[in-house]
Amino acid sequence: MILCDIGNTFFHFYQSGKIWKEPVSGAIKTESTDEVFYISVNEKASRKLVAKFPSAIDIESIIKIDTAYRGLGVDRAAVCLAVSDGVIIDAGSAITVDVMQNGTHLGGYILPGFSAYEKCYSGISQKLDVDINMNVSIQSLPQNTVDAVSYAIIKSISLMLRDTVKTKPVFLLGGDGKYLSKYFENSIYDASLIFKGMMRAIEKYKG
Amino acid sequence: MILCDIGNTFFHFYQSGKIWKEPVSGAIKTESTDEVFYISVNEKASRKLVAKFPSAIDIESIIKIDTAYRGLGVDRAAVCLAVSDGVIIDAGSAITVDVMQNGTHLGGYILPGFSAYEKCYSGISQKLDVDINMNVSIQSLPQNTVDAVSYAIIKSISLMLRDTVKTKPVFLLGGDGKYLSKYFENSIYDASLIFKGMMRAIEKYKG
Repeated sequence: MILCDIGNTFFHFYQSGKIWKEPVSGAIKTESTDEVFYISVNEKASRKLVAKFPSAIDIESIIKIDTAYRGLGVDRAAVCLAVSDGVIIDAGSAITVDVMQNGTHLGGYILPGFSAYEKCYSGISQKLDVDINMNVSIQSLPQNTVDAVSYAIIKSISLMLRDTVKTKPVFLLGGDGKYLSKYFENSIYDASLIFKGMMRAIEKYKG
Repeated sequence: MILCDIGNTFFHFYQSGKIWKEPVSGAIKTESTDEVFYISVNEKASRKLVAKFPSAIDIESIIKIDTAYRGLGVDRAAVCLAVSDGVIIDAGSAITVDVMQNGTHLGGYILPGFSAYEKCYSGISQKLDVDINMNVSIQSLPQNTVDAVSYAIIKSISLMLRDTVKTKPVFLLGGDGKYLSKYFENSIYDASLIFKGMMRAIEKYKG
Protein backbone atom coordinates (compact mmCIF):
# COMPACT_ATOMS: atom_id res chain seq x y z
CA MET A 1 0.00 0.00 0.00
CA ILE A 2 1.21 3.48 -0.94
CA LEU A 3 -0.24 6.62 0.64
CA CYS A 4 0.01 9.95 -1.16
CA ASP A 5 -0.67 13.44 0.18
CA ILE A 6 -0.91 15.90 -2.70
CA GLY A 7 -0.10 19.46 -1.71
CA ASN A 8 0.28 22.71 -3.63
CA THR A 9 3.93 22.03 -4.45
CA PHE A 10 4.70 18.36 -3.86
CA PHE A 11 3.37 14.81 -4.03
CA HIS A 12 4.28 13.35 -0.61
CA PHE A 13 4.49 9.55 -0.71
CA TYR A 14 4.58 7.00 2.12
CA GLN A 15 5.17 3.27 2.05
CA SER A 16 6.10 0.99 4.95
CA GLY A 17 7.59 3.81 7.03
CA LYS A 18 9.47 5.37 4.11
CA ILE A 19 8.60 8.93 3.03
CA TRP A 20 9.59 10.67 -0.20
CA LYS A 21 8.35 13.55 -2.31
CA GLU A 22 8.19 14.69 -5.93
CA PRO A 23 7.34 18.15 -7.28
CA VAL A 24 3.83 18.42 -8.70
CA SER A 25 5.30 20.31 -11.64
CA GLY A 26 7.22 17.32 -13.06
CA ALA A 27 6.34 13.83 -14.32
CA ILE A 28 5.81 11.31 -11.47
CA LYS A 29 8.85 9.02 -11.20
CA THR A 30 7.51 6.70 -8.47
CA GLU A 31 6.74 3.23 -9.85
CA SER A 32 4.58 0.62 -8.10
CA THR A 33 1.85 -1.92 -8.66
CA ASP A 34 0.63 -1.55 -5.04
CA GLU A 35 -2.70 -0.03 -4.05
CA VAL A 36 -2.48 3.82 -3.89
CA PHE A 37 -4.65 5.85 -1.49
CA TYR A 38 -4.47 9.62 -1.69
CA ILE A 39 -5.79 12.92 -0.40
CA SER A 40 -5.33 16.18 -2.29
CA VAL A 41 -5.71 19.94 -2.09
CA ASN A 42 -4.55 20.27 -5.70
CA GLU A 43 -6.96 19.00 -8.36
CA LYS A 44 -4.59 19.36 -11.28
CA ALA A 45 -1.97 17.28 -9.49
CA SER A 46 -4.64 14.70 -8.52
CA ARG A 47 -5.38 14.15 -12.20
CA LYS A 48 -1.67 13.61 -12.79
CA LEU A 49 -1.53 10.99 -10.02
CA VAL A 50 -4.57 9.16 -11.35
CA ALA A 51 -3.12 9.20 -14.88
CA LYS A 52 -0.06 7.43 -13.48
CA PHE A 53 -1.92 5.12 -11.06
CA PRO A 54 -5.38 4.59 -12.64
CA SER A 55 -6.72 2.62 -9.66
CA ALA A 56 -5.60 5.21 -7.05
CA ILE A 57 -8.37 5.94 -4.53
CA ASP A 58 -9.21 9.38 -3.15
CA ILE A 59 -10.00 8.79 0.56
CA GLU A 60 -11.18 12.33 1.35
CA SER A 61 -14.72 11.09 2.08
CA ILE A 62 -13.54 8.89 4.97
CA ILE A 63 -11.38 11.62 6.62
CA LYS A 64 -13.83 12.81 9.25
CA ILE A 65 -13.03 14.86 12.34
CA ASP A 66 -15.15 16.43 15.05
CA THR A 67 -15.03 20.18 14.31
CA ALA A 68 -17.13 23.32 13.87
CA TYR A 69 -14.65 24.56 11.26
CA ARG A 70 -16.12 24.95 7.75
CA GLY A 71 -13.86 24.17 4.81
CA LEU A 72 -10.99 22.53 6.67
CA GLY A 73 -8.49 21.24 4.09
CA VAL A 74 -8.41 17.45 3.88
CA ASP A 75 -4.66 17.48 4.60
CA ARG A 76 -5.20 19.36 7.86
CA ALA A 77 -8.09 17.05 8.80
CA ALA A 78 -5.95 13.96 8.16
CA VAL A 79 -3.19 15.18 10.46
CA CYS A 80 -5.76 16.00 13.15
CA LEU A 81 -6.88 12.34 13.05
CA ALA A 82 -3.40 11.39 14.26
CA VAL A 83 -3.35 13.76 17.27
CA SER A 84 -5.96 13.80 20.04
CA ASP A 85 -4.43 16.58 22.16
CA GLY A 86 -2.08 19.37 21.12
CA VAL A 87 -1.17 21.95 18.53
CA ILE A 88 -0.33 20.77 15.02
CA ILE A 89 1.93 23.00 12.95
CA ASP A 90 2.34 22.03 9.30
CA ALA A 91 4.94 24.35 7.78
CA GLY A 92 4.89 24.05 4.00
CA SER A 93 3.85 26.56 1.31
CA ALA A 94 1.45 27.76 4.00
CA ILE A 95 1.87 27.25 7.75
CA THR A 96 -1.36 25.75 9.04
CA VAL A 97 -1.94 25.63 12.78
CA ASP A 98 -4.68 23.45 14.29
CA VAL A 99 -5.61 22.86 17.91
CA MET A 100 -6.92 19.48 19.08
CA GLN A 101 -8.39 18.75 22.51
CA ASN A 102 -9.78 15.35 23.54
CA GLY A 103 -10.07 14.36 19.89
CA THR A 104 -12.00 17.51 19.00
CA HIS A 105 -10.68 20.16 16.61
CA LEU A 106 -11.05 23.56 18.31
CA GLY A 107 -10.13 25.65 15.26
CA GLY A 108 -7.02 26.86 13.51
CA TYR A 109 -5.37 29.45 11.32
CA ILE A 110 -3.13 29.84 8.30
CA LEU A 111 0.10 31.82 8.07
CA PRO A 112 2.07 32.18 4.84
CA GLY A 113 5.00 29.76 4.48
CA PHE A 114 8.56 31.13 4.46
CA SER A 115 8.91 31.18 0.68
CA ALA A 116 5.47 32.80 0.34
CA TYR A 117 6.66 35.55 2.69
CA GLU A 118 9.75 36.08 0.53
CA LYS A 119 7.62 36.42 -2.59
CA CYS A 120 5.28 38.73 -0.71
CA TYR A 121 8.06 41.20 0.09
CA SER A 122 9.53 41.10 -3.41
CA GLY A 123 6.07 42.03 -4.71
CA ILE A 124 5.96 45.16 -2.52
CA SER A 125 9.24 46.63 -3.71
CA GLN A 126 12.39 45.48 -5.49
CA LYS A 127 14.34 46.73 -2.47
CA LEU A 128 12.58 44.08 -0.36
CA ASP A 129 13.42 41.26 -2.77
CA VAL A 130 15.76 39.51 -0.32
CA ASP A 131 16.41 35.98 0.93
CA ILE A 132 15.41 35.38 4.55
CA ASN A 133 18.32 35.25 6.98
CA MET A 134 17.15 32.20 8.97
CA ASN A 135 19.79 32.91 11.62
CA VAL A 136 18.66 36.47 12.39
CA SER A 137 18.40 37.25 16.09
CA ILE A 138 14.84 37.91 17.18
CA GLN A 139 16.11 39.39 20.46
CA SER A 140 17.61 42.61 19.08
CA LEU A 141 16.28 45.19 16.64
CA PRO A 142 17.47 44.73 13.03
CA GLN A 143 20.07 47.08 11.54
CA ASN A 144 19.67 46.36 7.81
CA THR A 145 17.01 45.44 5.25
CA VAL A 146 17.65 41.68 5.10
CA ASP A 147 17.41 41.40 8.88
CA ALA A 148 14.44 43.82 9.03
CA VAL A 149 12.49 41.47 6.75
CA SER A 150 13.80 38.24 8.33
CA TYR A 151 13.12 39.41 11.89
CA ALA A 152 9.56 40.43 10.98
CA ILE A 153 8.80 37.08 9.35
CA ILE A 154 10.42 34.80 11.91
CA LYS A 155 9.42 36.73 15.02
CA SER A 156 5.80 37.23 13.93
CA ILE A 157 5.50 33.51 13.22
CA SER A 158 7.15 32.51 16.49
CA LEU A 159 5.05 34.94 18.59
CA MET A 160 1.88 33.54 16.98
CA LEU A 161 2.87 29.93 17.55
CA ARG A 162 3.91 30.49 21.15
CA ASP A 163 0.69 32.39 21.83
CA THR A 164 -1.30 29.38 20.57
CA VAL A 165 0.82 26.66 22.15
CA LYS A 166 1.39 27.96 25.70
CA THR A 167 1.76 24.64 27.59
CA LYS A 168 0.11 22.33 25.05
CA PRO A 169 1.99 19.51 23.30
CA VAL A 170 3.39 20.56 19.90
CA PHE A 171 3.48 18.42 16.76
CA LEU A 172 5.37 19.70 13.75
CA LEU A 173 5.57 18.57 10.16
CA GLY A 174 6.28 20.03 6.72
CA GLY A 175 9.48 21.29 5.12
CA ASP A 176 10.06 24.07 7.65
CA GLY A 177 8.67 22.20 10.66
CA LYS A 178 12.09 21.17 11.87
CA TYR A 179 13.32 24.76 11.81
CA LEU A 180 10.28 25.95 13.78
CA SER A 181 10.77 23.29 16.44
CA LYS A 182 13.58 25.42 17.88
CA TYR A 183 10.98 27.84 19.27
CA PHE A 184 9.60 25.20 21.65
CA GLU A 185 11.24 23.53 24.60
CA ASN A 186 9.42 20.30 23.84
CA SER A 187 8.01 19.34 20.48
CA ILE A 188 7.63 16.33 18.25
CA TYR A 189 8.66 16.61 14.61
CA ASP A 190 6.93 13.81 12.70
CA ALA A 191 6.80 14.05 8.90
CA SER A 192 4.64 10.91 8.84
CA LEU A 193 1.81 12.41 10.93
CA ILE A 194 -0.45 12.99 7.95
CA PHE A 195 0.06 9.39 6.81
CA LYS A 196 -0.70 8.11 10.31
CA GLY A 197 -3.99 9.98 10.12
CA MET A 198 -4.76 8.56 6.67
CA MET A 199 -3.92 5.08 7.92
CA ARG A 200 -6.20 5.53 10.92
CA ALA A 201 -9.07 6.57 8.61
CA ILE A 202 -8.50 3.55 6.34
CA GLU A 203 -8.36 1.13 9.30
CA LYS A 204 -11.50 2.61 10.80
CA TYR A 205 -13.30 2.40 7.45
CA LYS A 206 -12.23 -1.23 6.92
CA GLY A 207 -13.48 -1.87 10.48
CA MET B 1 6.07 75.39 -0.44
CA ILE B 2 4.80 71.91 -1.33
CA LEU B 3 6.28 68.78 0.22
CA CYS B 4 5.96 65.44 -1.54
CA ASP B 5 6.67 61.95 -0.21
CA ILE B 6 6.81 59.47 -3.09
CA GLY B 7 6.01 55.91 -2.05
CA ASN B 8 5.56 52.65 -3.94
CA THR B 9 1.89 53.35 -4.64
CA PHE B 10 1.17 57.05 -4.03
CA PHE B 11 2.49 60.58 -4.27
CA HIS B 12 1.70 62.06 -0.84
CA PHE B 13 1.51 65.86 -0.96
CA TYR B 14 1.52 68.42 1.85
CA GLN B 15 0.95 72.15 1.77
CA SER B 16 0.12 74.45 4.70
CA GLY B 17 -1.33 71.66 6.85
CA LYS B 18 -3.29 70.08 3.99
CA ILE B 19 -2.47 66.51 2.92
CA TRP B 20 -3.57 64.77 -0.28
CA LYS B 21 -2.41 61.87 -2.40
CA GLU B 22 -2.38 60.71 -6.01
CA PRO B 23 -1.60 57.24 -7.39
CA VAL B 24 1.88 56.95 -8.93
CA SER B 25 0.29 55.06 -11.82
CA GLY B 26 -1.66 58.05 -13.17
CA ALA B 27 -0.80 61.54 -14.48
CA ILE B 28 -0.18 64.07 -11.67
CA LYS B 29 -3.19 66.37 -11.31
CA THR B 30 -1.76 68.69 -8.62
CA GLU B 31 -1.01 72.15 -10.05
CA SER B 32 1.21 74.76 -8.37
CA THR B 33 3.93 77.28 -9.04
CA ASP B 34 5.28 76.92 -5.47
CA GLU B 35 8.64 75.37 -4.58
CA VAL B 36 8.39 71.55 -4.40
CA PHE B 37 10.62 69.53 -2.07
CA TYR B 38 10.43 65.75 -2.23
CA ILE B 39 11.78 62.45 -0.97
CA SER B 40 11.23 59.19 -2.83
CA VAL B 41 11.60 55.42 -2.60
CA ASN B 42 10.34 55.07 -6.18
CA GLU B 43 12.67 56.32 -8.93
CA LYS B 44 10.19 55.95 -11.76
CA ALA B 45 7.65 58.07 -9.90
CA SER B 46 10.36 60.63 -9.03
CA ARG B 47 10.96 61.16 -12.75
CA LYS B 48 7.25 61.71 -13.20
CA LEU B 49 7.20 64.36 -10.45
CA VAL B 50 10.22 66.17 -11.90
CA ALA B 51 8.65 66.10 -15.37
CA LYS B 52 5.64 67.89 -13.87
CA PHE B 53 7.59 70.20 -11.53
CA PRO B 54 11.00 70.71 -13.23
CA SER B 55 12.44 72.69 -10.30
CA ALA B 56 11.40 70.11 -7.64
CA ILE B 57 14.25 69.41 -5.22
CA ASP B 58 15.12 65.96 -3.84
CA ILE B 59 16.03 66.56 -0.17
CA GLU B 60 17.23 63.03 0.61
CA SER B 61 20.79 64.27 1.20
CA ILE B 62 19.71 66.47 4.12
CA ILE B 63 17.60 63.78 5.84
CA LYS B 64 20.13 62.60 8.41
CA ILE B 65 19.43 60.57 11.53
CA ASP B 66 21.65 59.00 14.17
CA THR B 67 21.49 55.25 13.46
CA ALA B 68 23.57 52.11 12.97
CA TYR B 69 20.99 50.85 10.46
CA ARG B 70 22.34 50.44 6.90
CA GLY B 71 19.97 51.19 4.03
CA LEU B 72 17.17 52.86 5.98
CA GLY B 73 14.59 54.14 3.47
CA VAL B 74 14.51 57.93 3.25
CA ASP B 75 10.79 57.91 4.10
CA ARG B 76 11.44 56.06 7.35
CA ALA B 77 14.37 58.36 8.17
CA ALA B 78 12.21 61.45 7.58
CA VAL B 79 9.52 60.26 9.99
CA CYS B 80 12.19 59.46 12.59
CA LEU B 81 13.31 63.11 12.42
CA ALA B 82 9.87 64.08 13.74
CA VAL B 83 9.94 61.74 16.78
CA SER B 84 12.64 61.72 19.44
CA ASP B 85 11.19 58.97 21.66
CA GLY B 86 8.79 56.18 20.73
CA VAL B 87 7.79 53.56 18.19
CA ILE B 88 6.83 54.71 14.70
CA ILE B 89 4.48 52.47 12.73
CA ASP B 90 3.94 53.41 9.09
CA ALA B 91 1.28 51.08 7.69
CA GLY B 92 1.19 51.33 3.91
CA SER B 93 2.13 48.80 1.21
CA ALA B 94 4.62 47.62 3.83
CA ILE B 95 4.34 48.16 7.58
CA THR B 96 7.63 49.67 8.74
CA VAL B 97 8.35 49.83 12.45
CA ASP B 98 11.14 52.01 13.84
CA VAL B 99 12.21 52.64 17.41
CA MET B 100 13.56 56.03 18.50
CA GLN B 101 15.16 56.78 21.87
CA ASN B 102 16.59 60.20 22.83
CA GLY B 103 16.75 61.16 19.16
CA THR B 104 18.64 57.99 18.23
CA HIS B 105 17.23 55.32 15.91
CA LEU B 106 17.65 51.95 17.63
CA GLY B 107 16.62 49.83 14.63
CA GLY B 108 13.45 48.61 13.01
CA TYR B 109 11.72 45.99 10.92
CA ILE B 110 9.36 45.59 7.98
CA LEU B 111 6.11 43.59 7.90
CA PRO B 112 4.03 43.22 4.73
CA GLY B 113 1.09 45.62 4.46
CA PHE B 114 -2.46 44.27 4.59
CA SER B 115 -2.95 44.17 0.84
CA ALA B 116 0.47 42.55 0.39
CA TYR B 117 -0.63 39.82 2.81
CA GLU B 118 -3.80 39.28 0.78
CA LYS B 119 -1.79 38.89 -2.43
CA CYS B 120 0.62 36.60 -0.60
CA TYR B 121 -2.13 34.13 0.32
CA SER B 122 -3.73 34.21 -3.12
CA GLY B 123 -0.31 33.27 -4.54
CA ILE B 124 -0.12 30.16 -2.32
CA SER B 125 -3.45 28.68 -3.38
CA GLN B 126 -6.65 29.81 -5.06
CA LYS B 127 -8.49 28.58 -1.94
CA LEU B 128 -6.66 31.25 0.07
CA ASP B 129 -7.60 34.05 -2.34
CA VAL B 130 -9.83 35.83 0.19
CA ASP B 131 -10.44 39.38 1.42
CA ILE B 132 -9.31 40.01 5.00
CA ASN B 133 -12.12 40.17 7.54
CA MET B 134 -10.88 43.24 9.43
CA ASN B 135 -13.41 42.54 12.20
CA VAL B 136 -12.26 38.99 12.96
CA SER B 137 -11.87 38.25 16.66
CA ILE B 138 -8.28 37.60 17.63
CA GLN B 139 -9.42 36.15 20.96
CA SER B 140 -10.97 32.91 19.69
CA LEU B 141 -9.72 30.30 17.22
CA PRO B 142 -11.05 30.73 13.65
CA GLN B 143 -13.70 28.37 12.29
CA ASN B 144 -13.44 29.03 8.53
CA THR B 145 -10.86 29.95 5.86
CA VAL B 146 -11.52 33.70 5.71
CA ASP B 147 -11.13 34.01 9.47
CA ALA B 148 -8.16 31.61 9.53
CA VAL B 149 -6.31 33.93 7.15
CA SER B 150 -7.56 37.18 8.73
CA TYR B 151 -6.74 36.04 12.29
CA ALA B 152 -3.21 35.02 11.25
CA ILE B 153 -2.52 38.35 9.56
CA ILE B 154 -4.05 40.65 12.15
CA LYS B 155 -2.94 38.76 15.24
CA SER B 156 0.64 38.25 14.02
CA ILE B 157 0.91 41.97 13.26
CA SER B 158 -0.61 43.00 16.59
CA LEU B 159 1.57 40.59 18.62
CA MET B 160 4.67 41.96 16.89
CA LEU B 161 3.71 45.58 17.44
CA ARG B 162 2.81 45.06 21.10
CA ASP B 163 6.06 43.17 21.66
CA THR B 164 7.97 46.16 20.29
CA VAL B 165 5.93 48.89 21.93
CA LYS B 166 5.50 47.64 25.51
CA THR B 167 5.20 50.98 27.37
CA LYS B 168 6.75 53.26 24.75
CA PRO B 169 4.81 56.06 23.05
CA VAL B 170 3.28 54.97 19.71
CA PHE B 171 3.09 57.09 16.56
CA LEU B 172 1.08 55.78 13.62
CA LEU B 173 0.76 56.88 10.03
CA GLY B 174 -0.07 55.38 6.64
CA GLY B 175 -3.33 54.11 5.17
CA ASP B 176 -3.83 51.36 7.75
CA GLY B 177 -2.33 53.25 10.69
CA LYS B 178 -5.71 54.31 12.02
CA TYR B 179 -6.94 50.70 12.04
CA LEU B 180 -3.83 49.52 13.90
CA SER B 181 -4.23 52.22 16.55
CA LYS B 182 -6.98 50.10 18.12
CA TYR B 183 -4.35 47.70 19.43
CA PHE B 184 -2.88 50.36 21.72
CA GLU B 185 -4.41 52.08 24.72
CA ASN B 186 -2.60 55.28 23.85
CA SER B 187 -1.31 56.21 20.44
CA ILE B 188 -1.00 59.20 18.16
CA TYR B 189 -2.15 58.89 14.57
CA ASP B 190 -0.49 61.66 12.57
CA ALA B 191 -0.50 61.40 8.78
CA SER B 192 1.67 64.54 8.61
CA LEU B 193 4.57 63.04 10.60
CA ILE B 194 6.72 62.45 7.55
CA PHE B 195 6.18 66.04 6.42
CA LYS B 196 7.06 67.34 9.89
CA GLY B 197 10.34 65.45 9.59
CA MET B 198 10.99 66.85 6.10
CA MET B 199 10.20 70.34 7.36
CA ARG B 200 12.60 69.90 10.28
CA ALA B 201 15.36 68.84 7.87
CA ILE B 202 14.73 71.85 5.62
CA GLU B 203 14.70 74.28 8.56
CA LYS B 204 17.90 72.80 9.97
CA TYR B 205 19.57 73.02 6.56
CA LYS B 206 18.50 76.62 6.03
CA GLY B 207 19.87 77.29 9.54
